[in-house]
Amino acid sequence: MKQISIRNQLEGRVKEIVHSPVVSEIVVKTKAGTLASVITTRSVKDMKLKKGDRVFVMVKATEASIQKEK
Amino acid sequence: MKQISIRNQLEGRVKEIVHSPVVSEIVVKTKAGTLASVITTRSVKDMKLKKGDRVFVMVKATEASIQKEK
Amino acid sequence: MKQISIRNQLEGRVKEIVHSPVVSEIVVKTKAGTLASVITTRSVKDMKLKKGDRVFVMVKATEASIQKEK
Amino acid sequence: MKQISIRNQLEGRVKEIVHSPVVSEIVVKTKAGTLASVITTRSVKDMKLKKGDRVFVMVKATEASIQKEK
Amino acid sequence: MKQISIRNQLEGRVKEIVHSPVVSEIVVKTKAGTLASVITTRSVKDMKLKKGDRVFVMVKATEASIQKEK
Amino acid sequence: MKQISIRNQLEGRVKEIVHSPVVSEIVVKTKAGTLASVITTRSVKDMKLKKGDRVFVMVKATEASIQKEK
Repeated sequence: MKQISIRNQLEGRVKEIVHSPVVSEIVVKTKAGTLASVITTRSVKDMKLKKGDRVFVMVKATEASIQKEK
Repeated sequence: MKQISIRNQLEGRVKEIVHSPVVSEIVVKTKAGTLASVITTRSVKDMKLKKGDRVFVMVKATEASIQKEK
Repeated sequence: MKQISIRNQLEGRVKEIVHSPVVSEIVVKTKAGTLASVITTRSVKDMKLKKGDRVFVMVKATEASIQKEK
Repeated sequence: MKQISIRNQLEGRVKEIVHSPVVSEIVVKTKAGTLASVITTRSVKDMKLKKGDRVFVMVKATEASIQKEK
Repeated sequence: MKQISIRNQLEGRVKEIVHSPVVSEIVVKTKAGTLASVITTRSVKDMKLKKGDRVFVMVKATEASIQKEK
Repeated sequence: MKQISIRNQLEGRVKEIVHSPVVSEIVVKTKAGTLASVITTRSVKDMKLKKGDRVFVMVKATEASIQKEK
């Protein structure tokens, strides 16, 4: 089994894919709301990613910021 | 009111903060599971961030990847 | 008021927007020169972002590199 | 001469360096305000980076976000 | 000579460029396999980047993750 | 089997780990030279990562830049 250092893995279902020649937007419905990911269109094809697929949105901890109400 | 282009904003509560001189790890409990964010310790101090605070974990769509079971 | 951990916030004015179906390029004129940001076209629409808008270019410290002349 | 695809290059002077075993924080004074960059301590040593050095803070366009007042 | 804090610099040759109005995909053949980079189309033009060019793929250490077989 | 959208996967062997309370530096020897990755120390522990392990350095295409000699 593979283990990856990326700490944030949010399970959901692909709700929509917006295509363009280089990158595509993957909209994923999760328990914490709708998330968006921009990946290469090449990966969308290689993974045969399509609406309805069960996926994980993966985010490295160093790339997540924090906002709070003062 | 401020608007930001960052699409992914996950609400939660600070569960733990691990400090070090330069960066700190903020562990946040959300509806979609526990998330981790590494930010500067300077920001932790400026924001007076502490355990129990209600926050949003913010992630730019271009920095989110997708994983699926084949 | 909202506080965000992102340390680098550069004020400027939108000089040009280049659109494409998934991402758009926002060119911003600041006191430190012209900056470029690539965000989702969905955010451009949600924020009703247009030429002439006063904005902040936001950059997480962990995503900024340093170059110097030897 | 070297050319790099990174569009945002902000000139400034190193104002402060905060060290830790793995990463260090470089605080840079620019015309657009004070910026912060977190890089490996190994790079700080390799570049012999020190207070007063003239440097460029480098940011990839896909890693810059936009904020505006509504 | 310029020095940059970005630790990962992988030499290779441009094998393919996929263009779109905002971003382009640069496919680079290196000793460690084929790599992909998504940069602004504006940078592709400014650098006059074309198939066959000898280049370096540059990656900040904080943006590289680790995967291993359990 | 798991599939991930991250296009750049560089195989190598862990040569050195530098620890700190929040993040650790993983130095990996690959066919394309020595690479560095900064990940959370929590991931180093969870993955039981140690010197000599066979790993992949993973990099999202949108986070890779291009440099060339003019």
